[in-house]
Parts: sequence; C-alpha cells; structure tokens
Amino acid sequence: MTEPLTVIGTPVSPYVRKVLAVLELKGLAWRIDPLVPFLGNDEFTRLSPLRRIPVLIDGELVLSDSSVIAEYLDERHPGTALMPRAVADRARCRWLEEFADTRLADVLIWGLFGPAITRPGIFKSARDEAALARVIAEDLPPVMDLLETMAPEAGFYAGDLTTADLAVAVHFANLRWSGVAPGLDRWPRAAAWIGRIEGAEPLVRLNALGARALTVRYPDRPALFAEYGIGLVDTGVTGREARRGPMTTL
Amino acid sequence: MTEPLTVIGTPVSPYVRKVLAVLELKGLAWRIDPLVPFLGNDEFTRLSPLRRIPVLIDGELVLSDSSVIAEYLDERHPGTALMPRAVADRARCRWLEEFADTRLADVLIWGLFGPAITRPGIFKSARDEAALARVIAEDLPPVMDLLETMAPEAGFYAGDLTTADLAVAVHFANLRWSGVAPGLDRWPRAAAWIGRIEGAEPLVRLNALGARALTVRYPDRPALFAEYGIGLVDTGVTGREARRGPMTTL
Repeated sequence: MTEPLTVIGTPVSPYVRKVLAVLELKGLAWRIDPLVPFLGNDEFTRLSPLRRIPVLIDGELVLSDSSVIAEYLDERHPGTALMPRAVADRARCRWLEEFADTRLADVLIWGLFGPAITRPGIFKSARDEAALARVIAEDLPPVMDLLETMAPEAGFYAGDLTTADLAVAVHFANLRWSGVAPGLDRWPRAAAWIGRIEGAEPLVRLNALGARALTVRYPDRPALFAEYGIGLVDTGVTGREARRGPMTTL
Repeated sequence: MTEPLTVIGTPVSPYVRKVLAVLELKGLAWRIDPLVPFLGNDEFTRLSPLRRIPVLIDGELVLSDSSVIAEYLDERHPGTALMPRAVADRARCRWLEEFADTRLADVLIWGLFGPAITRPGIFKSARDEAALARVIAEDLPPVMDLLETMAPEAGFYAGDLTTADLAVAVHFANLRWSGVAPGLDRWPRAAAWIGRIEGAEPLVRLNALGARALTVRYPDRPALFAEYGIGLVDTGVTGREARRGPMTTL
C-alpha cells in the first residue's frame, strides 16, 4: 500500500480537525506533525505560503487550506462521498463551508477562542475582557441567527453528512474551550444540528483529542497521541520562536 | 430555452468580472443588476448574507461568492471546462483561486484600490497616502514574489485557462485603476502571465467595461451597458443610503 498521508497542524485547530475527520470518514491512514502555526519556521512557510494549518502531504503533492484539502480527498478517494451529488446542493455546501471557514471563524475563533486562549497562552498577552464581551454581544448573534435559518430540522445540511457540516461544527468545540461564550439556547435548531454533527464518530474522538492537546505539556505530547493510536512525524517545520504576522492563521 | 442568468454586482468589482468572464467563456446568456454593494438594501442581505457581490440567480437557486458561483457554472455547464481534469491539478487551482480571492485581494483591493478609489468616492473620506505607501512598500512585494514563483513560463497555471487564472488576473485592472501602484517590472514572469490572462477575450472587453463603469454617472449607466450589448435588470436590491459594515465586501 501507499505511505500514510501526513498532516501538519495541531488538532486544537478546528481546520485541522475538519481534515482529520475527513481522513477518518474516508478510512485513510494518516500521521501528524502537530505544529502550532505561530511556531512554524521557514520550511513551514515554503509548504504553506500563508502559514496556515492544516497542510496535507500526499507524496509529491503539498496542499494547504482545509477546504482545498477536503475536496481533494473527496475527489481522490470517492468512497463515502462527503459532497452531495446534485450540482445545486454542491454549490450550497461550498457556500456553507466558505461561510464557516471565514465569517463564522472570524467570530468564534479570531474573535473569541484566539483572544481568550491562544494569544494569552502563546504570546503571554493579557486577555481583553471588554473586547471579548463586545464580540459576544455584537458579532456572535448575527452569525448564529444565520445558522439558525440554515439549520436542517433533522439530519445534515444536504441530507448525508458533508464536509460543509463538519466545517460548521468544528468551531464550536473551540468556542466551548474559550470558556467565555454563552450557551446556544437562543438558537435551538442550530444547536441541535451542531450537536448531531459533533455526535458523528470521528468528531467525538477528535474533539476529545483537541481538548487534551490544548493543555498538554510539550514533553507529554508523544504519550497523548500514542494513547489515541496516532502516529507522530517530524516534518521539520517547527522553529523555536513564536512568529506573529498577518499571514499567520491558527 | 431557459431564462438568462442574472448577476448582481457592478463590473468594477474584480469578483464580478471573474464570474462574467466564466459566463462569457461558457457562452451563457446573462443580464446584470450592477449593484455597488455598499448601496445594497435588506433584500440584498437576504440574497447575499455576507453582502458580497457577485450574486448569481439561476431560477430558484441564489448563490453568492465568486468561487462558489464559478465552480457551480463549471459543473452545470461542462462545455469549455474551466477546471483541469487531474485531481491534483484541480486542488492546486483551488488553492491559487483561494489565494487570489483572499490574500492577493487583501493587498490589491482592500489595501490599495478600496482606500484609493472606492472609499473616497462613496464615503467622501480623505485618502490616506501614508497607508497606501505602506501597503505598496510592505504588503505588495511578498504577494507578488509568491506569484512570481507560481507563474508558468508559458500558457496558464494548469495548461489551459482556468477560473484560477482569471481569479488572479482580475485584480490587476483594479490595481491600475487605483493609480497609486508601481508597474510590475520586478516580477516579469508574473506580469507576463497576468498579461496573457488579461489578453484572453472576455477579460479585454470586461476590463474595458469595468473601467467605464468606474466613472460613469448613474443616469448614464443604461447607455453604457447598452453599448456593450448587456441587458440590465432591476432585482430590487438597491437602497438609497450607503451602508458600511464588516460584512460588506466590494
């Protein structure tokens, strides 16, 4: 058989968990270099020009951007399709995934999880509680209102589970980990939909792994991944100094 | 035959011209409601939740996001394919299109064209010359350096012309219209590639239309579009007041 696929990026990242969920649903073998992107070196920039995780390495092919990777895997390994067949449904799912990757992430990840957890942890900066409260009061309701109108009453957005459903749901574990956001009681239909996606097997395990990876000490990482039966690999992308920049994405 | 497709959005927008170029290359009939997105009303928000142009209306289906629309059109109308066939090339093109839509646009459109032209024109705000100079000195070189490494020596990124090539090239007319940016002599390979894409017929005409639409007075718009043989349609999305917001995209 072929070599296992290599993923670069910590499973704390929702985008990494989205791709790992796709790999699991496809039944593909994979191993991981759980890079925290702020710590990536110049080799990381070469592999991922926008310094984004995840990166997928499949032989000679190196891809970044979780949506590009997910659609690549779906086309390369057509079993267990993660995109609907109907052309209009495919377009609707691509829009939902784009919305989840961008505006939803702007609020949940860049507006809440990053300022509450990542930046204080990595850059030792103080939390800006007023900014967090403003995001919760002003930015969160419109995106949740939109999800509430899009949420299916049962099942998933286009019937069977797709990467678009995964793209939405992965951010909500990070929202809980941020420890600052309210519950989703105001948006019961969206909350139930997200709950159904999070209950799909690969996400149960991957969200549990992500929660553990969030607090694990560096020397204890091999034991953590071994506990989950996941192979670690060193792709040579980790630097020693945290680098912050406009092209650095969680 | 079916009704012509409807596009909402002014051809001043690079994203609108990308979709119009796809429609032209596919030989599809279309008409346009040339909305300036800042002037969109609540009906526009309903059709395009992130208030982005272009919007495509195809019967009951309403889509926004130029990349989602372009891939929808390519799947719905397979003649004159605008995506390569090989799975790895498709992934590479999707990444290039994502890069063009986001980071390249951050610099050329949001960093230069918007502050130089759109915002002073619509919001009557003063141009911030120092900010423009900083973008030209600091942000432009890295994105152009990356394009220089990706530019093919001849032809297009994956052989035949794709939407990914179009997605890159459309921004450079806006860069010229901004009137503030230097030439591309430092990046000869990228410049030649962009020139080849801009020389492909639909873009020659669409860039000429965009340049005219940039300065046309509102009452003269019907005559301008009639000159280009393009049908206008009122989709009811234009409000009277310019609305600015984080979810408003050119």
